[in-house]
Amino acid sequence: MYNFTFQNTTKIYFGENQLEHLGDELKQYGTRVLLTYGGGSIKKIGLYDKVMDELKSAGLTVFELSGIEPNPRHTTVNKGADICKKEKIDVLLAVGGGSTIDCTKFIAATAFYEGDSWDLVTQKAPITKALPVFSVLTLSATGSEMDSGGVISNMDTNEKYGFLHPLLQPKVSFLDPTNTYSVSAFQTACGGADIMSHVFDIFYFTKYPKMDMIDRVMEDVIKTVIKYAPVAVKEPTNYEARANLMWAASWALNGFLQTGGFQAASCHNMEHELSAYYDITHGLGLAILTPRWMEYILDETTAPQFKKFGINVFGVDASLSDMEGAKKAISSLSEFLFDTLGLQRTLTEIGIDERHFKAMAKNACGGDVMHGYKSLTPEDVENIYRMCL
Amino acid sequence: MYNFTFQNTTKIYFGENQLEHLGDELKQYGTRVLLTYGGGSIKKIGLYDKVMDELKSAGLTVFELSGIEPNPRHTTVNKGADICKKEKIDVLLAVGGGSTIDCTKFIAATAFYEGDSWDLVTQKAPITKALPVFSVLTLSATGSEMDSGGVISNMDTNEKYGFLHPLLQPKVSFLDPTNTYSVSAFQTACGGADIMSHVFDIFYFTKYPKMDMIDRVMEDVIKTVIKYAPVAVKEPTNYEARANLMWAASWALNGFLQTGGFQAASCHNMEHELSAYYDITHGLGLAILTPRWMEYILDETTAPQFKKFGINVFGVDASLSDMEGAKKAISSLSEFLFDTLGLQRTLTEIGIDERHFKAMAKNACGGDVMHGYKSLTPEDVENIYRMCL
Repeated sequence: MYNFTFQNTTKIYFGENQLEHLGDELKQYGTRVLLTYGGGSIKKIGLYDKVMDELKSAGLTVFELSGIEPNPRHTTVNKGADICKKEKIDVLLAVGGGSTIDCTKFIAATAFYEGDSWDLVTQKAPITKALPVFSVLTLSATGSEMDSGGVISNMDTNEKYGFLHPLLQPKVSFLDPTNTYSVSAFQTACGGADIMSHVFDIFYFTKYPKMDMIDRVMEDVIKTVIKYAPVAVKEPTNYEARANLMWAASWALNGFLQTGGFQAASCHNMEHELSAYYDITHGLGLAILTPRWMEYILDETTAPQFKKFGINVFGVDASLSDMEGAKKAISSLSEFLFDTLGLQRTLTEIGIDERHFKAMAKNACGGDVMHGYKSLTPEDVENIYRMCL
Repeated sequence: MYNFTFQNTTKIYFGENQLEHLGDELKQYGTRVLLTYGGGSIKKIGLYDKVMDELKSAGLTVFELSGIEPNPRHTTVNKGADICKKEKIDVLLAVGGGSTIDCTKFIAATAFYEGDSWDLVTQKAPITKALPVFSVLTLSATGSEMDSGGVISNMDTNEKYGFLHPLLQPKVSFLDPTNTYSVSAFQTACGGADIMSHVFDIFYFTKYPKMDMIDRVMEDVIKTVIKYAPVAVKEPTNYEARANLMWAASWALNGFLQTGGFQAASCHNMEHELSAYYDITHGLGLAILTPRWMEYILDETTAPQFKKFGINVFGVDASLSDMEGAKKAISSLSEFLFDTLGLQRTLTEIGIDERHFKAMAKNACGGDVMHGYKSLTPEDVENIYRMCL
């Protein structure tokens, strides 16, 4: 295993009716709040009103930025940062899923930058300061509520980038599983695929050493998704299922499962190109890519780890050969994603063809070689994209 | 499951040669450092010199308090607090195991209190402020390096109390597994028993609902101890074993495994009386008590959970009846603690007889009833103590 540092300072309020603490927590950071959200689903479920009631009864001055996209744009970040500068915002409150929170994090940083947010996203300019960010989570998927990262898209250039910075870590996040009751079966399934993929990519499937305890916990997070995502798809108001998924999402990417490991995130790199070009749901792209990536890199060096995954997570027969066990593991994963969760199986089904594969593959590899469980050239990535058709 | 809040702000440096960050981290809190440690083992292993080199090259002014006891005394806390007041200490650096860190936490709080530290320990007076605490850990056991609690003994009154307070949370802890290479086989085994017991007591064995994902992770931490404590006992310089135990100890009690649960800590309450009266190693007392407590409370309501523990952790045959499976789980645990780890099996073997059982049982129950997995009266606790003879 590798040396590491670990710190995660976010305060979590988990469960129903915890919003009563929102006002007091926010007031520690100031009085002028920018409330950010997406397409308005938070109004439909009554969450907008609940949040506004808390903010008003705490005597806070509220500004709003709505319409944050599912793959949030740098132009929206710029718009939010302008409001922060003009209205002298003290603290940001993101109410939504990972996209809303990611966007809000970069607004928080761009509020102190005189220029385009894209400079910060692409690390042309450093993040030196950021407003405090709060979140009220409505989707169990990205883990943004408890990590220091964010991913932003530039639709002018078909680019999508993200990175971690300690100043982007939310101060306080409110995780109420009932706020995810209205999430559709499709988005619930995509969220499950996203959580699993975070574990796979960072750092369950790896050629590098890892810590045994962490390896076990990674399998637990995956098993939690396998148990509860199908329940939540079928019974959207099942509290146990929604709660387990919500907490699993936060822990998949909050740093704990990354302790002692080291890896590049192959499927995430490949998927970000799909979303950048086609604006698809991140979790769906990951679901389509992951089993094909596993198939593509399957050989005698990767088979034992894929087989172990199959045994521990899907109960694959341990007496199979490494190669047979690995194949069974991959087919079990496909079955779970495409049959049990009902996600689309191919890029073709979601209207994506090969026309941009070459450019996407080159970008995914940063123009050179993508280092991961197996190193992949742009040709390799193109082949994997083709397997998804 | 229950609503909860979770926050753990401690920054962890994990691995070898991380002490080079010590000076820079300390300097953020001031220049006058009180270095605290125990009986001097840190000098034998060369850690004292390494720490002093870092402190000196950072230009810090260092004061020292040595001789902190394995069950730290309130009188030692007072001594440390006097140094803080007199020397205008800015920050405390505990180098040692849980006892040294616990003591240092209460020194940090007593530095701002005009009176006896016992008032703070017994919560007669509130903790209102505390100096920042750092730790360099040398024993994998209590989790004090990453939690906000501490336990202090008053040998005049045979009392031992502890509690959690956010101001006692360490700012930064250095976890280098090689600093535990010299820990004896006995102390390594006791540490393993302590880690397991934290999970059992808080909150694996419980009558209250818990979160499924957390339940799985609790079993992982226990399995980590079962796998690696025997390795570390036999091969004290096995890095993997020491590292897994170290990280398991921190996570057993840092709040994560407590999310969504609720329970009183029966074995800990009973053991604190043993240590308060006889100054024995906490983990040893827990090891002797735990299987007897399980036997004592075994009935048709507790058997299914004990059996599940046996199946998931020790591979007990799932086809056994609940009662048979539970008995097998308890005997597997005994075998692990007393045969595999080689810990003493009875209180008699460590020179404890029944003379104080009545008083200890009354104290353990706070004079009334101890609420836990099963509620226990002082008579029940006395019976459990007798089973340990």
